[in-house]
Order: sequence, then structure tokens, then C-alpha cells
Amino acid sequence: MRGEVYVLSSPAGGGKTTLSNLLLKEIPNLKKIVTCTTRKPRPGEKNGIDYIFLTKEQFEEKIKKGEFLEYAVVHGNYYGTPKDQVFSQIDNGNDVLLVIDVQGMRQIKSNMDNVITIFMIPPSIDELVNRMRRRGDSDQEIQRRLQTAMKEFPAWKEYDYIVINDILLEAKEAVKHIILSNRYKTSRFDLNKILDSRLRELMKDG
Amino acid sequence: MRGEVYVLSSPAGGGKTTLSNLLLKEIPNLKKIVTCTTRKPRPGEKNGIDYIFLTKEQFEEKIKKGEFLEYAVVHGNYYGTPKDQVFSQIDNGNDVLLVIDVQGMRQIKSNMDNVITIFMIPPSIDELVNRMRRRGDSDQEIQRRLQTAMKEFPAWKEYDYIVINDILLEAKEAVKHIILSNRYKTSRFDLNKILDSRLRELMKDG
Repeated sequence: MRGEVYVLSSPAGGGKTTLSNLLLKEIPNLKKIVTCTTRKPRPGEKNGIDYIFLTKEQFEEKIKKGEFLEYAVVHGNYYGTPKDQVFSQIDNGNDVLLVIDVQGMRQIKSNMDNVITIFMIPPSIDELVNRMRRRGDSDQEIQRRLQTAMKEFPAWKEYDYIVINDILLEAKEAVKHIILSNRYKTSRFDLNKILDSRLRELMKDG
Repeated sequence: MRGEVYVLSSPAGGGKTTLSNLLLKEIPNLKKIVTCTTRKPRPGEKNGIDYIFLTKEQFEEKIKKGEFLEYAVVHGNYYGTPKDQVFSQIDNGNDVLLVIDVQGMRQIKSNMDNVITIFMIPPSIDELVNRMRRRGDSDQEIQRRLQTAMKEFPAWKEYDYIVINDILLEAKEAVKHIILSNRYKTSRFDLNKILDSRLRELMKDG
């Protein structure tokens, strides 16, 4: 049965990277996607593992062919989520976790049905600023990120689920409940998984 | 924000009573409903706690007034789920867990929107029979219950979620994921819960 695509968004400093790494580690059959980018590889980064590194021309060719679920320009470089990886994962029954901003969420929803979207918010603006400070963001970066966050907050109404990231492990459990609960949806139930043929026959009838 | 109504069904011996007791103990703000019945109280049973004991006339008066979400006759006695208890719980933001058969699920869905339904199935017919035997059901009872189960199995397609009750604790976790995940739905998010007024203002805009 087909897997689901989850989009997780939150303002910078909201904790989405830490959280998504924990989820990918703990939830079996939850997969991440290797993003395409035109940014130059940093020392140690491996093509196909950290990113798929493309030239500007290659990237724009893929845009033309409609090969991205969403893409954006950040600091002059393209970043994009390739459709082929996403569809091959869900066709194999895996779930996909995409950590993407509000604009990216909107693009994905316009390109595909049945995406499940989760918006994670900090408990307060003070806590958001504290977190940015703790991870070493400069005052200027904090100002810029707060500006972006302010534009993104009102988008919460467009999401399916809202998770408040007060305590990281609680937020993780919340997203885990969301992802695991969907695996029991009747639309994902595969009668052929039932080893007992008598029971399978009974369930087919009617 | 309004709570949800969950209907849990499974064939006799499927483990639904044990499971629902565990869930009610472990999940905060998940409530059970005291069923109305015309059966005579057994020694030790308390009116209003174990059941609401009614005369046949009282029960039929309530049927006429549409006061039940669902009701049925079992071994010549009426049993019914009173609407007022269910609505007062969900209006107070609690979730309600109803353990009810396929017929009851259909009645409830015709009487109310947004009910969330879970069908729990045993891993095999052999295991179902073993469980009935272990709890001391006679061969005759087992035969009768299997007949009922056979009629109920094909109804799985009408449910929102399917949980296979192979290992009880895993089935419990599954239902827990379902119930807890829904608490993060955007429709249940209450902006006023956010203590930080700056954040609340940001989220209101747009």
C-alpha cells in the first residue's frame, strides 16, 4: 500500500532539523529525500548523499520538465525536492518526511494530493529568540529570521496539524503519533498481509 | 475545543474490553460513557456507575425522544448510549471511547458527524477461537460468536482505521497513536492556549 508524504514546517530556531533527525532514526520506513542544489559542495559533502549537486543549467532543465515537487532560491542558489525520489519511496510503501518552509508546502500541495502537513511552533517568541541565540545566531541573523517567522506564522491555518515545540521529546512524540496513526488507515490496509486464509476469505465477503 | 468520539469494534474475543480499559487508564481526557439498560442490576452493580438502570417504559420513552446515539436489544434487554453524556464530554474538550458492535457503529454514524471508527481484528480465526476458549466460553458459545463474527468481518471497509490485535500492547499503542494524533489537528488548536501574547498576535494576522 502507498505511503504518505509529510511536510514539516517551522520558523528558524523552531527545532525542525533536530526533530526530523530523531524521527528518521526512530520510525521505521520513514525516509528522507536527497535535495537537489546548485550550491557548491562543501568539503566532505558527497554527491547523492548530502545533496544532488547540479549546475544551474541542469537545475533549470529539471524545472522546465516539472521534475520538482517544490523548489526555491536561497542566497542565490537553487534547492529542490525531486519528484522521482518521493514517488519511488511512497510507491514502495514507505513514508516520506520533507522539512520545508511555508512557500514549499504550498508548492507541494499544488503539485500533489493527500500530502499531510504539520506546523511546529515555538512556545513563545522569547523562547524562539533564546534558541537562536543558544545556537550562535548573530543579532542581525536573529532579526532577519524573526522577520521571516512573522510572515510564516499566520500560515498555520493551512496545515493539517499544529505541534507546539516546548519540550523536544514531547513534540517528537506528537509527530510520531501523527505518522504512525496514519499507518492504520483503512485505505492502507492490505488484506493480503493477513496470513490466515480463512480470515482473509471472511473479510473479502459482503 | 471540541473532543472526538471514537467507536471501537471487534468480534467477541477480539480483546476490545481489555484494550479499552487500558486506554481509559492511560490516556488523559479519554472518557467512557455509562450505558443505559433495562437488564436487572447484578449484585454489587451501582446505578449511574456500572449502568443507568431503566424500566422498559423509561427506555422506550427515551428512544421516542431520540435520546440515544445508538441502542440495541441483547438477550431481550435494551442497551443504549445516551446522547447527553457523549455531547457533554466532547463539549468539555474530552474524547469519548465507545466500544460498540458493527450495527451500533452504523447507527452512530447516521446520528452524528465526524465519528472516528476503529475496527480491531484478531490475527487469525484460530487465535480468535483460542481466546474464547481461554476465557472459558463453551463450544456452543464459540459457535454462536463465530457466526456473529463472520457477519461482522466484511464491515471493516466502513471503518476509518484497522488494527490487528496480535499482541495486545501493540494494538493498544496503535489505538493510542490514533487518539493522540487527532489532538494535534488544526481544527482542535486553540490560539488562546498560547500564553505568549506576541506570538498569539502574530498567528492571528494574515
